[in-house]
Amino acid sequence: LASNNLRAAAAEKSDSALSTIKLGVAAYSFYQFPLDQAIAMTQRVGLKHFCVHPKHLPITSAAEEIVKAAKTIREAGLDLYAVGVVDMKKTEDVDRAFEYAKLAQVGIINAMPTVDLLPRINEKVKQYDIRLAIHNHGPEDKQFPTPDVAYRQIKNFDPRVGLCIDIGHTLRGGVEPSEAAEQFADRLFDVHIKDIHVATALGRGCEAGRGVIDLPRFLRTLKKIRYSGVVAFEYEKDMHDPLAGLAESVGYVRGILAAI
Amino acid sequence: LASNNLRAAAAEKSDSALSTIKLGVAAYSFYQFPLDQAIAMTQRVGLKHFCVHPKHLPITSAAEEIVKAAKTIREAGLDLYAVGVVDMKKTEDVDRAFEYAKLAQVGIINAMPTVDLLPRINEKVKQYDIRLAIHNHGPEDKQFPTPDVAYRQIKNFDPRVGLCIDIGHTLRGGVEPSEAAEQFADRLFDVHIKDIHVATALGRGCEAGRGVIDLPRFLRTLKKIRYSGVVAFEYEKDMHDPLAGLAESVGYVRGILAAI
Repeated sequence: LASNNLRAAAAEKSDSALSTIKLGVAAYSFYQFPLDQAIAMTQRVGLKHFCVHPKHLPITSAAEEIVKAAKTIREAGLDLYAVGVVDMKKTEDVDRAFEYAKLAQVGIINAMPTVDLLPRINEKVKQYDIRLAIHNHGPEDKQFPTPDVAYRQIKNFDPRVGLCIDIGHTLRGGVEPSEAAEQFADRLFDVHIKDIHVATALGRGCEAGRGVIDLPRFLRTLKKIRYSGVVAFEYEKDMHDPLAGLAESVGYVRGILAAI
Repeated sequence: LASNNLRAAAAEKSDSALSTIKLGVAAYSFYQFPLDQAIAMTQRVGLKHFCVHPKHLPITSAAEEIVKAAKTIREAGLDLYAVGVVDMKKTEDVDRAFEYAKLAQVGIINAMPTVDLLPRINEKVKQYDIRLAIHNHGPEDKQFPTPDVAYRQIKNFDPRVGLCIDIGHTLRGGVEPSEAAEQFADRLFDVHIKDIHVATALGRGCEAGRGVIDLPRFLRTLKKIRYSGVVAFEYEKDMHDPLAGLAESVGYVRGILAAI
């Protein structure tokens, strides 16, 4: 047995299975921790792509704070690719979010706007050439409970308005995440990956693989539609101590990707 | 979409993919922690099967201590199935280990004996009806570097003398773990699963999936040979703080099992 072959096989595995799907984190997972600890935990589990959360860097931050925080994240070796999820209740929230995204040099804003703000968003994606992805929040969300509802609202807008499918909230809303991803592939900009303990509105977040979401099917679907965005872990159990559950979830998804 | 179907699918997944391979832990992973913390970390990552280590419960312990520790482990909901790895340098070590295993009511002793003790071990497995598995320790181990060396020594003994294949040490010794598992399936009693960072004698433990061991192939092999024992994680990186890496490793293996 030549160990060079094994190394070559490992490198190939890394190139094919691991890097075709880009894994990252939605920093909401670290809601109860400061930014430096959020960065450290992201590094510990070996994730590369980072979506900063307004909790760590508020939308109302001064320009220099935004630039500084973005620099800190990138100097830690992370790809700061998005901000979110950003709550948008008025025009000013939309305008601020795009200015923030420009300063942080991210390509995507994940947002939870009100429906009446969509025309403003449609103007801003053109003005800034920054994409905005509507994040669905499940049955309690009167605006965008599931991806299909969001898609119907945005499909006639600029193609830079799209979706961040949260697969937990999607299934809580009675929609199979794999079907949603395939159906709305043309507007799928970001994914929040997770698992939930029951497939109803009452579903709560849990370690990937311990719940009811068919993650092998979902990841096969992402490969099938040649999804080129980030798959970001949003881990919402044990939020005071998320590292172990996040690590287990990351391992689970990597294991599936190594096997499919 | 009927959520009952999803729940049924999840239950079926659990029955088929997850439960055909029994996942457990070799408590050596928690070498730097007391038994209660070893138990707590095992529970946290959702592993069921537990191999107690002499560090937590020495072979020289009084009978009542052994009985008490075994009770503590079982009352925590864990399946105490083995003890090990037990160092055996003289006859007394062999005799004590079997008495210990009987008191702890485990079915397997994982051991690192000297070759000259094998006839004594062969007597003891018959006397106690407790199996003993030789644990291979890699190139530095002059007795049993790889499973094939151990198998040649034990193949003519009672069938209750067998192997605990440590896939990290096996690959460090230049042997592909999947080939060893298939070749010695008839005497494979236990497995220490892990990953190593390079496929040479210098390989060090790392999170499953980040190293060079072909774990999808290995797990497919275990299914193919209908391996009915435990696959025990022996995590040897960050031993002062192993939870995150162990959790990632457990997730990785569960992900593969969910996908194959």
